[in-house]
Amino acid sequence: MGTIGELGEFGLIGRLTGRLPQGGDVRLGPGDDAAVIAAPDGRVVATTDLLGEGRHFRLDWSGPYDIGRKAAAQNLADVVAMGARPTALLIGLALPAATDVGWAERLYDGLADECAVVGASVAGGDVVSAPEITIAVTALGDLGGRPPLTRSGARPGDLVAVRGALGHSAAGLHLLQNPGPGARTAAEQRLVQAHLRPVPPYEAGAEARELGATALLDVSDGLLQDLGHIAAASGVRIEVDSAAVPAPPFPGPERRRFALTGGEDHAFAGTFPATAVPPPSWTVVGKVREGRGVTLDGAVQGPGGWDHFRE
Amino acid sequence: MGTIGELGEFGLIGRLTGRLPQGGDVRLGPGDDAAVIAAPDGRVVATTDLLGEGRHFRLDWSGPYDIGRKAAAQNLADVVAMGARPTALLIGLALPAATDVGWAERLYDGLADECAVVGASVAGGDVVSAPEITIAVTALGDLGGRPPLTRSGARPGDLVAVRGALGHSAAGLHLLQNPGPGARTAAEQRLVQAHLRPVPPYEAGAEARELGATALLDVSDGLLQDLGHIAAASGVRIEVDSAAVPAPPFPGPERRRFALTGGEDHAFAGTFPATAVPPPSWTVVGKVREGRGVTLDGAVQGPGGWDHFRE
Repeated sequence: MGTIGELGEFGLIGRLTGRLPQGGDVRLGPGDDAAVIAAPDGRVVATTDLLGEGRHFRLDWSGPYDIGRKAAAQNLADVVAMGARPTALLIGLALPAATDVGWAERLYDGLADECAVVGASVAGGDVVSAPEITIAVTALGDLGGRPPLTRSGARPGDLVAVRGALGHSAAGLHLLQNPGPGARTAAEQRLVQAHLRPVPPYEAGAEARELGATALLDVSDGLLQDLGHIAAASGVRIEVDSAAVPAPPFPGPERRRFALTGGEDHAFAGTFPATAVPPPSWTVVGKVREGRGVTLDGAVQGPGGWDHFRE
Repeated sequence: MGTIGELGEFGLIGRLTGRLPQGGDVRLGPGDDAAVIAAPDGRVVATTDLLGEGRHFRLDWSGPYDIGRKAAAQNLADVVAMGARPTALLIGLALPAATDVGWAERLYDGLADECAVVGASVAGGDVVSAPEITIAVTALGDLGGRPPLTRSGARPGDLVAVRGALGHSAAGLHLLQNPGPGARTAAEQRLVQAHLRPVPPYEAGAEARELGATALLDVSDGLLQDLGHIAAASGVRIEVDSAAVPAPPFPGPERRRFALTGGEDHAFAGTFPATAVPPPSWTVVGKVREGRGVTLDGAVQGPGGWDHFRE
């Protein structure tokens, strides 16, 4: 199939964009100075993430398809966490000229397939050469006439509830970093898969709206740290009951830590009026009080999640 | 002032976002899962670029402020080239933990100041650690109820005209790559500055609208190559008269080549109805004919501009 250097920039762009289905929100897709995306609300939700080789993914662990799924998922989850409907992604891709063209094509297949889960499209981007692979993902979304679900609306008395896996990705990463002597069990393999290709429960956004959520975010840095962001933005204290937090099916004492501090599953955590009755897909894990910070079983928590410059 | 590693991810984000003025189009700025930007047209123009250390900028040539200005400019120019009004940038920034905090702050000052030129804001982003500096810029814009100015509307009989400097950046790059024994003249220094901090004539977007432009783009890969994009998208041939193309004030035979194949000045090139009378700020450089490809003084041109994978 050949390398990207042999194919050239414009050949590569043609090959990649030719694989991208364009949904109804794309008014003008790849090939011009910019894309044009529907924003019927009159506002657009926009978020961006950078993913780097060796930091956000490892080429010896992840194939390009899973990297694409995961890169798209984490940005689509951010849009959903605003209570918005994802419409489009833009992709900036830096990679060595010696990269196989098929690698880039599979990456784009993963990006496009994850978009398809929520009805969005990869509508544009940029490719450049670089010594290492970097993927910049920007996701756009539409609020459908409703106010955004921010981090700042939590009020004393609200329930705190989560939707989706917690600590599965962290447990899977632990298994990848500490391979045992034997083959992985099926349960272990599922945890590894949760790390390589997380499955955000995107329906959480619409469910949270229906439940009258006062704040919502996707858990990317770890539950305690991310609840700390809601506490700080809302000017409240959040009390977490550790026994209520669902832990991953990992056979070790680290499972509780994974559930409380592991990110990357892209579960959703929100606060809801005390009168809300979340369906079984949501788990109530705590309560909002007056004050500040996050407590776990009554003990004040410090920073304990992921810091990109400190690990 | 210390390094970014000492400050940490959230400390850095606080320092950077604290420097960013938020304009009227920003409904929700930095600090949540995503930003919310006004899109009154009901559509949003969106474009993204990746810039890498050693490829798009050199730390021994450019300071962080100029890098920020240039990174913003090239994306704002893409939005303007669609006939849209830039509203916001999102910035993904990867950099080593050992980077001085002041470096990142000056980069953001440059991004914010270039945004201010067109009334846009840096509304959000992401920072991660990486061995080299990479900047991902996404620009958003509003069409104000008008159709986008694409590359595909050129028709036989149209005029081809350009607005802005051509080849200044390429001449400046040449001077940086080939330093002479003596000090640079003032004219040479201006060319170097044009490379380090290009000044796109953003007003060209509105002017092109008034002139009834049938196609418009910003010259990022070189005039001939970029006109080739219009020719291909519109299904026409574009004839360029080399004597009409303004060349940079560079005292060497390369000046004509710089003007025809140099990118990065972010001049604007467009096609206009034959009846259009461009003001003096625009230079008519050719004509649209039936056919395909680009000719220069009658000779068919091949690819001759910038390919990121074929330096």
